[in-house]
Amino acid sequence: MKEIESFLRRIVAPDPLVALGAYRRLESLTKPRGSLGRLEELAVRAAVITGQAMPRVAAPVIFTLAGDHGVVAEGVSAYPQAVTAQMVENFARGGAAVNVLARHVDARVVVADLGVATELPSYRGVLARKIAPGTRNLARGPAMTREETLAAIGIGVALVEEAVPDCIGTGEMGIGNTTAASALTAALTGADPRAVTGRGTGVDDAVWARKLEVVKRALATNRPDPRDPLGVLTAVGGLEIAGLVGVILAGAARRVPVVLDGFIATAAALVAVRLRGEVREYLIAAHRSAEPGHARLLEALGLAPYLDLGMRLGEGTGAALGIGVLRAALACYTDMATFKDAGVSERLP
Amino acid sequence: MKEIESFLRRIVAPDPLVALGAYRRLESLTKPRGSLGRLEELAVRAAVITGQAMPRVAAPVIFTLAGDHGVVAEGVSAYPQAVTAQMVENFARGGAAVNVLARHVDARVVVADLGVATELPSYRGVLARKIAPGTRNLARGPAMTREETLAAIGIGVALVEEAVPDCIGTGEMGIGNTTAASALTAALTGADPRAVTGRGTGVDDAVWARKLEVVKRALATNRPDPRDPLGVLTAVGGLEIAGLVGVILAGAARRVPVVLDGFIATAAALVAVRLRGEVREYLIAAHRSAEPGHARLLEALGLAPYLDLGMRLGEGTGAALGIGVLRAALACYTDMATFKDAGVSERLP
Repeated sequence: MKEIESFLRRIVAPDPLVALGAYRRLESLTKPRGSLGRLEELAVRAAVITGQAMPRVAAPVIFTLAGDHGVVAEGVSAYPQAVTAQMVENFARGGAAVNVLARHVDARVVVADLGVATELPSYRGVLARKIAPGTRNLARGPAMTREETLAAIGIGVALVEEAVPDCIGTGEMGIGNTTAASALTAALTGADPRAVTGRGTGVDDAVWARKLEVVKRALATNRPDPRDPLGVLTAVGGLEIAGLVGVILAGAARRVPVVLDGFIATAAALVAVRLRGEVREYLIAAHRSAEPGHARLLEALGLAPYLDLGMRLGEGTGAALGIGVLRAALACYTDMATFKDAGVSERLP
Repeated sequence: MKEIESFLRRIVAPDPLVALGAYRRLESLTKPRGSLGRLEELAVRAAVITGQAMPRVAAPVIFTLAGDHGVVAEGVSAYPQAVTAQMVENFARGGAAVNVLARHVDARVVVADLGVATELPSYRGVLARKIAPGTRNLARGPAMTREETLAAIGIGVALVEEAVPDCIGTGEMGIGNTTAASALTAALTGADPRAVTGRGTGVDDAVWARKLEVVKRALATNRPDPRDPLGVLTAVGGLEIAGLVGVILAGAARRVPVVLDGFIATAAALVAVRLRGEVREYLIAAHRSAEPGHARLLEALGLAPYLDLGMRLGEGTGAALGIGVLRAALACYTDMATFKDAGVSERLP
């Protein structure tokens, strides 16, 4: 506990004055003022986050953390639990959507097993960081112990420190983890579980109704206290979600842009922000997920996503596309000619 | 006239049955069905457009066509006319936003002067295809002659045939061309000029009011007949816009995806579709421009854009980002592992 508290104190708000210089730079570029729309806002945010006049994203890393969920015993998912381990193997081989999209934006994927239920063979490219073979069933009691939660956060922090990224993408894999994210969202925001429980990987009406009951039961059984974000995470979170909390905290501590994926990653981000409000300033919402709870989380965080493509895959796929948009924004910001250099006339007086 | 008619007849609708195989491919990939959202729709569209089971975009080209507009004499722009030529030089040097974003998505930019008012030195990388030193003032009479219009369309077609692209992005530069695009949009869709006249590069209220009057006057003076798209284009279009009509027609004839930029390019697309309805099947709307007329054009074309970043720069900047999204979609479609290959379990029964 003491360790995390001293780590949290290292996270400080960025200097908002950096934005002034960034806006001045944008105004000098050969384009009408504001005509690059949200790409301009994104470039300014990157300057503020990094504190650098000319921010670069040269070594982005997407952290795709995997963990299983005891709550799958309730029959809340369209896929069997074995898929978590199978997809980790797929990540290791480079065949999953996040691998393809990460290559597309020239980002590295760090895959770590924080709590896959089955023993994994040692794959090249999958970091073995298992804390437990999955969480306990959050509908019947706490998903984790507080020690497990803190250990998972610590692993997330350590993964970032080892990878030395200058931009972070968040991703995850865990059959059942939209159920945990729905419970987290309801507990932290006070939202009606019905409004924040979605179809996950694509469950039918009957399974959705069961999933909603499970979320409600998780809240009734655990009575998570929103003033204790670590307690909420312990009760209804997951090992990979706690790991992402660590990744996000470490990104903020390192002052690098943290590009959030969809519903589960954004739930982790809200936990991180509840632990330390300054974290919010380092977050970039890549896209709007089709999961209904995601909108509620974005609202709670005050973040407006850049893409809205109806994606709901997780893994870090949305974050990968978001990193692409961020790099596009920074390419314009750093590489465009200025009016002066190009000899282009400015606006008519 | 005969020449364009026989060219138009070469444009045929793609085979919609190709979509079946593409959907089957998407269902075989290691992800929940539909979870890549609109990336999946985009991959299917590329398969249908190209007629290929495994479409690739290896050599995308953005055509950035430049032309001046006599209507600037009415004081409708925030920038002096000289900026068209200055920006062409900026394109040649690689310093404009479209250059930067094209590099970002690994696309080539073909810049052509179809009607810049001033004589340009011969820049490396700018194709000299000048038809006239700008259009005439569309508020006082037709902007072009029908011969000029046909010549510009022919140049657009020829540019595509020379460049041999497997994916086309459309772009333009021309101070005053949002005025022409607004008049085109009103004439072709019957929209109220007020609803389709925007701020362009960023004019103030007084200039906007003047611009609106000019659009109304252009329609009253020329009385363009929406059943005669070439006549509308001749009366209130522009040389670079007519060139883009040719680029778009040639893309459809070659069966390659035509990724539309914003307001002006989409106005050209509506002209092309009015000339030959089958063209619509080859169009991809990259983004929603902040120009109000763009929404009306997208509606008339039945196209839903993929990005909504508040951009309003033109040049092909939105098209460049759209090509990036298309490539991301195709990367997933062609490179992801299948359930069978990866040994990943499919949905629970």
